[in-house]
Parts: sequence; structure tokens; C-alpha cells
Amino acid sequence: MRHSLRLGIAGLGTVGGGVMKLLAREGDQLKARCGRAIEVSAVSARDQNKPRAFELGQAQWVNSPLDLAARDDVDVVVELIGGEDGIALELVQRALEAGKDVVTANKALLAHHGPALAALAEAKNCTIGYEAAVAGGIPIIKCLREGLVANRIERLYGILNGTCNYILTDMEETGREFAEVLSEAKALGYAEADPSFDVGGTDTAHKLAILAALAFGAHVPFGDLFVEGIERIRPADMEFAWDLGYRIKLLGLASREGSGVAARVHPALVPLTAPIAEVGGVMNGITVESDPVGTTVLEGPGAGEGPTASAVVADIADIARGNRQNFYVKGAKDLENAGLVPFSSLIYRYYLRLNVIDKPGVIASITAIMANAEISIESLIQPARAPDEAVPIVIQTHETTESAMASVMQQIDALDAVIEKPCLIRIEAV
Amino acid sequence: MRHSLRLGIAGLGTVGGGVMKLLAREGDQLKARCGRAIEVSAVSARDQNKPRAFELGQAQWVNSPLDLAARDDVDVVVELIGGEDGIALELVQRALEAGKDVVTANKALLAHHGPALAALAEAKNCTIGYEAAVAGGIPIIKCLREGLVANRIERLYGILNGTCNYILTDMEETGREFAEVLSEAKALGYAEADPSFDVGGTDTAHKLAILAALAFGAHVPFGDLFVEGIERIRPADMEFAWDLGYRIKLLGLASREGSGVAARVHPALVPLTAPIAEVGGVMNGITVESDPVGTTVLEGPGAGEGPTASAVVADIADIARGNRQNFYVKGAKDLENAGLVPFSSLIYRYYLRLNVIDKPGVIASITAIMANAEISIESLIQPARAPDEAVPIVIQTHETTESAMASVMQQIDALDAVIEKPCLIRIEAV
Repeated sequence: MRHSLRLGIAGLGTVGGGVMKLLAREGDQLKARCGRAIEVSAVSARDQNKPRAFELGQAQWVNSPLDLAARDDVDVVVELIGGEDGIALELVQRALEAGKDVVTANKALLAHHGPALAALAEAKNCTIGYEAAVAGGIPIIKCLREGLVANRIERLYGILNGTCNYILTDMEETGREFAEVLSEAKALGYAEADPSFDVGGTDTAHKLAILAALAFGAHVPFGDLFVEGIERIRPADMEFAWDLGYRIKLLGLASREGSGVAARVHPALVPLTAPIAEVGGVMNGITVESDPVGTTVLEGPGAGEGPTASAVVADIADIARGNRQNFYVKGAKDLENAGLVPFSSLIYRYYLRLNVIDKPGVIASITAIMANAEISIESLIQPARAPDEAVPIVIQTHETTESAMASVMQQIDALDAVIEKPCLIRIEAV
Repeated sequence: MRHSLRLGIAGLGTVGGGVMKLLAREGDQLKARCGRAIEVSAVSARDQNKPRAFELGQAQWVNSPLDLAARDDVDVVVELIGGEDGIALELVQRALEAGKDVVTANKALLAHHGPALAALAEAKNCTIGYEAAVAGGIPIIKCLREGLVANRIERLYGILNGTCNYILTDMEETGREFAEVLSEAKALGYAEADPSFDVGGTDTAHKLAILAALAFGAHVPFGDLFVEGIERIRPADMEFAWDLGYRIKLLGLASREGSGVAARVHPALVPLTAPIAEVGGVMNGITVESDPVGTTVLEGPGAGEGPTASAVVADIADIARGNRQNFYVKGAKDLENAGLVPFSSLIYRYYLRLNVIDKPGVIASITAIMANAEISIESLIQPARAPDEAVPIVIQTHETTESAMASVMQQIDALDAVIEKPCLIRIEAV
């Protein structure tokens, strides 16, 4: 039997604690499965005196996480600190420079620094495991990089943030408004004290950037992603969407478009018949369309102690067994570097909800603006109301470009009869 | 760059042809991804003169597939002949004995000889790739063996046969009878000329035996599996099931039961809310329940040239990259060998449809038989009909054992008023 694989774990919060517990609980099984033991040589955490729900065993405390990268008794640095820069970045860089493998759950770090860290890892003949960075309970990195290795990925999209999906599912089921559901989610621990990172779409965008770079072998400049959150969705939109045959989900979607790659995050109407429409609550779901396989769908818990720890330990086990993969399916220097297809050039069908004063000529004005922009209307619903009362108008368009629709939205918003900022939601043909 | 990985491919039918095409189309990409080229040194097929939709390139014909196991220019034998014994078994044995790795899509072979072949592979330090043997478009072997390596699998179940799922989906959508849909499926090429292997459940059982052995690290004696097919399902059952909140699917299900393992294949009522209820047509779907991840669901095409070839090539790429796994998550000699939990001891809720002559006392007789066996009735539906006319009675029971229900079924079947063999379908709490 080969010598033990020795870990240095930085960060003992929910995920780090989960990893310690899982390594202890499944130690014998992992040793049998990997043909060698997995040991924790050293750990770091902000507060060494905090009570912990696990035993440290043989592991030694280090005062700075950076010390882990310098220790001779550490083969793999497990980075569970988080944050796109700062100490996490420095630790991963130092670990790779010291010739150590890295396992990380840090999506922000990889969304911003993936190609640079991949290049460093290749130069040092090291590997970086990051299954836990995207949808922990779903082995999507392994699926894309190994299971679909012989495929050309054409499109992938997913529900990648459990907090948003929990909120949208609850709004749909109870008819409550976003703000009310969000504050309940905070109280239940499903949403952070500052939820903007989740509900604004940034967390989904981090994960999408990682998936898109891997799937398409391309640089995905994080700042070029179009990102829109769920803050403006109302229960009424969910009801109208349902009547039209759709459900509203926050999607991260990336696709091959000609010789380029498109990627974006926004709420979308998805057909009720799509598997992803059935992914409810805190669950994540990802659909991959590839040639020659066709459509593969994966669903599972995306976050939480158990699923994330499971993904971290799976990456550690891969290293223990000698399954060492490139960060991308190709070398970091071979990534396509053409930038993303501009969001304004993408083509969608749109769902548009307006709140208007019900006066003669309102619909004529709105439809004239759309006709001038050569945007066809697929359906228009205006429920009956008393004259001069506020009334919603719901329009479903045929396909048009983002730029055409943006110009139309400005004009409609400027109409006197439109008394509230219009709500525009893209319809994804998934 | 390391030397090429050299293949000997036995069988050039749909799957073998698909593998040849995919290796040619993605050759450059695979070389970049694996760090070495993949070449086909030699091939065998029943008829060397048949026109083929792919180029043989450098590959040489051999007259017997067994020759592939003896060639110095073959590192990996790819067995795509099929069949649980005979030449396929001999080829795989000889290849392993010669120290060659094996990739196979042969579920019948592995369901019957998995442990023996795994032991031989371990003795020879070889690996057997078999992702293509179960649900080709779904990387379920990789998910269980690597992605969930740190988990304890509690239960897994799936729709593992596309032909059956196509037939059931069509029956539900069109209301047509099994025989009519089956003959159409044959004409469309979705069902074999002799469909008994598919519709009788054997194919599902082969796949389940492989998954259960891997997931639970246990011998799954194929002959001990309870297997029931879909031949007796009628469109009326689907309607009644729908009214009760269920859909009918052919499931393969395996679970940890105390210290034992249970595994069986039969049609089942699954709740409409379960993700697997949404898997329609020829698609496959698998749900894995594990600790600490929770529930993971995977869906995709289970068969056909492209998905199966993709899985075969993924296994070849794993070998090329040095990702060499045990057949099971533990050594073959360490498999649990307690046999399966007897099917008669399992506990279900049941759906029961009877066709009876509507005479006074019929329901009293039936319910008395069930009361004597201490089986509680959850619901009973008898649509209104004219007296003395045949009428269906649909009963949903509370939980009871298979053995209790079997005894009750015999007694009910013996009643004069029951004019057709009763239809019993198990309700799975998935």
C-alpha cells in the first residue's frame, strides 16, 4: 500500500467541519477504495479556541493558512476559506508553487483566476480539484471533463443557486412577494444576512463562468457576463407564466454560438415540460446538451455541509487514486480567447408585464412602438378592469434581439400611461 | 507525450461502428485531452465484407475476436459483441489473462460474471471499463464509483430500459393497448424483433444487478432477482394511477435493508411529483439516495449509437489518462456475500385492479379476504355500471408484505365473480 495522502485544511467552517467529519466517518472505506489512507496533517482557522463538532486527531494547528503551503507533511492543500482574492488566492498560489495539489470549493476564486491558476498548476505538474465549487451534490465537473470527454458541448444551463430557487419556489407556491419570502429565508438560514450575492445572480455567475470555461475550453471574462437577479420578479409574473405554459427560474446558461461562446445569468421563463422546471426548493439542476450524447440532466443538492464535503472528499480521493486531470479539458494556454458573444446581439422571445392606467389608446401606443421596431407579438393579455384603474398588460413576443428589445423598453417606459417600471423576463427555449 | 493507447475492437455493429466514427471525429481532441493518441490496431466482426459507414484506417482485420487478446499491438480490448457467455466471455477472460485492459458495453456478461471477471482483473492488475453497460448517456458508474466515493448509498432506482419507457409513455399518452404500441415500436426500431428481453424486464435486471453490486459492494446473484415485466399493464391502469396521483414506470430498485441488500425489477406506481415520473419516451433516469449527499438524479438517453459510443470512448479515455479504477468500490474478494433479502419479505403498498361481475356481495367478499390477512385498504374505487355487467374495482392498500399480498391474491383470483386475472402493481415510495 502506498504512503498516506496528507492534507492541510484551511478553513474549518461549515464545509471544513463537514470534511473533517466525513474523513473521520468514512476513513476505513476511503482507505480501501483509494488503496491508501487519507490523513489530515495540519489545519488552520480564524479562531483556534472555538468549540468544534469534530475531533482534530493528529492534525496540528498552524497560525496562518499560508503555513500549510510550506509544510513537508502536506501533499494536498484544501482551501475552504473563500473569497475571490486575498488569503485564499495567495494560499492556492503558494501551494501550487510548492508543488502541492489543491482542492478548493471557492467558486469566486476560480471564476476570476481560473486560467492563471490552471497555468500555474500545469507548470508545476499539480492538479486542482474543484468539484465542490459548483453544485456540490452533482458531479458536474466530473461529468463534463470525464464522462462527456468525447463529446462536443453545445449548450448547458442550470439552476445553480439554491437560495434563489428556494425563494422562487416559495413565491410560486404561496403567492407571497419576494421581500417577504427573502426575510423568511434569512430567518431559516437559507439566505445570508447580506443576500445580494445570491439573489443578484453573482453566485450563479461564478459557477456558470467555471462551467462555461470547462465546457467550451474558452476564457470567460467574468466582467463580461450579463447578470440579472430575481429581485424584480413578482408572484403575478409566476401566475401569468404558468398560464402561458412556463415556470420562472434563475438560470445560468452558456452556449456555443458559431465560433464564439455566449454566457449569461438571468431569470427565465422555462417550459413546464422541461426537466429543469421541476427542480424545486433548494435543489440545483443542470442540463448539458452535447454531441453525440444528446441531453443529460443532473439534479441534486447544490450546497450545504454534506453535499459540499462529499465533493471535496471525492476530489481528494481522485488525487489519492492517481486520477489527475487538467483544470480544463485542454491546457490553459490553449483556451480560446475571443471574449464572449455580446449580450446585446443575442436573440430571445420575451415576456413583458406592464402596469398601465386603462385609458383608450394605451395598447395602441405600446403595440405601435413594438411594430416600429419590427417586433411581433405572440400573445397579449389584458384582464378586464374598471376604466381609469391600473391594469396589468402581459405581452409575449416572437424572437428579437436584446438590443431591439432594450430600445423598445425605453420607449414604453416613457409612456405616461405606464405607471411602473416594466418587468421584462426572457423566455429560454430549453 | 506517452505512446499511443492501442485498441482491439471486437464487434462493429451499431455500437462498434459508433465508436469507430467517434474516435475518428474526436481524435485530435482526445489526443489533447488524454496527452496521448488513441489508435485502433485491429478489429473483428462477423462479416468483413459488409459495407461500413466508417473508415478502418490503419486497423487490421482479425478473423476471430479471440485473436485480439493475443496481439502485442493491442493494449485495450473493446468487447462489443454482446451475450452473457460464449465468445464475449472468452474474449474478456483471455484479454485479462494476457494483461490487457478491457472496455465493454455488455450488461448481460457483467450481470452474470461481474465478480469473477473483477477478481481476474485485479489478479492481473488490469481494469474493466463498463460505463456503456448501464444507461450510456448517463455517467452513472463514474458517479457512483468516483463522485459519491465518500458516501454510503442507501437506495437507488431507475428507469433503465428505453423500450419499456417508450411503450409506457405512449400507452399513457394515446390510451392504446400494450400489444398495439409494442408492434409500432418494433416497426420504428425502438423494440427488437423478439422484445421479451426488454418488456419482460431482463434487460433492466442486468443493469440493476451491475448498479446494485457497485453501490452496495455486494454479490447480487442474478437468479435471485425478482423480475416482472410490463406486459400486463393496461391503459386503464395508467388512468386510475393518474387519478390517485401516480404514473406507472418499470423500475429497477435496490436498497440497503438492515445488514442486507434488496433488489428487484417490476412496474411501479411512482408519485407524479417524483423527478423520475417526468422521465418520458426512450430516456433513462436514475435516482441515487446517499449519505451525506442526499438525493441525486441523473437523466439521459440510455441506448443508441451516440450515447453508447460516448460511454465506451469515455472509458477508453480514462485508461489513456491513467484513471484506473477497481471494478467495484472494494476488491472483488471483499464483496458481501449474504445473498439478497428475500422478495417475499419486502413491504409495499399495492395498487390492485380487479375485473368483476357487479353482483351483491362481491366487494364484501374481497374486502373480507383482505381483512382476514390484516391488510388495510387505503382507497377503493368502483365506477357505476349496470347490474351484472363487468366492472373494474381499484383498491389501494396500506403497507403489507409481499407474502401476505401473494396469499390474498390467490384467494381473490379464486372468487367466481372475479372474471379476469387481477392486476397487481406495487407502489414505490420514491
